[in-house]
Amino acid sequence: VDRAETRRRFANARVAVLATVGPVGPHVVPVVFVVDGDRVYTAVDHKPKRSSRLQRLRNIDANPAVSLLVDGYDEDWNRLWWVRVDGSARVVSSGYASHGLDLLQQKYPQYRDRRPGGPVVVIAIERWVGWSAT
Amino acid sequence: VDRAETRRRFANARVAVLATVGPVGPHVVPVVFVVDGDRVYTAVDHKPKRSSRLQRLRNIDANPAVSLLVDGYDEDWNRLWWVRVDGSARVVSSGYASHGLDLLQQKYPQYRDRRPGGPVVVIAIERWVGWSAT
Repeated sequence: VDRAETRRRFANARVAVLATVGPVGPHVVPVVFVVDGDRVYTAVDHKPKRSSRLQRLRNIDANPAVSLLVDGYDEDWNRLWWVRVDGSARVVSSGYASHGLDLLQQKYPQYRDRRPGGPVVVIAIERWVGWSAT
Repeated sequence: VDRAETRRRFANARVAVLATVGPVGPHVVPVVFVVDGDRVYTAVDHKPKRSSRLQRLRNIDANPAVSLLVDGYDEDWNRLWWVRVDGSARVVSSGYASHGLDLLQQKYPQYRDRRPGGPVVVIAIERWVGWSAT
């Protein structure tokens, strides 16, 4: 899979898994996201949360290294693919945040009437890794 | 979502994301897997790999804390759900491995004519976390 196709598959996906490193091990949570050049944006939104002090944000504060995975599972294992992005995350709340929220609202109709209110996570992409079974 | 339903959703999923902790940050890869009581099995199989010295196995050797995530994404965000399992992983190759491979072959027809040949990862489940939008 070439570089452009790898990026396209990732950017077009509707959901990714965000992995961070916690105090004792890895933490993973699905996120909706948007790609803008070499950055990925994801936001804390109105979807119900298990806790108001989100583990993902605490982890990023302590260790900004994150990975995002988009998985193209298929029962025909010759058609499997995935794309992983490794990068450095930070939690933002002003100009960057507003730009990310605009892009998220463009990608997801679910956000159009309900702009996410929480902190925005910006991930500076450091590595693209694409894999395909064929 | 009650405990039994959480377990059922996870066990019935066809693919999960396995997260480990690497030297500089988290590592994530999709895996096929099978649940057996309080254990999860996944195997290194014939699917093409980026490297013969797999990052996931090196990470588990250094730090056995892993997470597995099954994501039930839906464009209707009222129907979103996910299940996460946190546990302790080890790489096995004899009796446990054989039992895990039998179970994997029962769950996945794709394995029936091609039993995975690589190491088996056994994850002792320490925590179930289920989330549902409604």
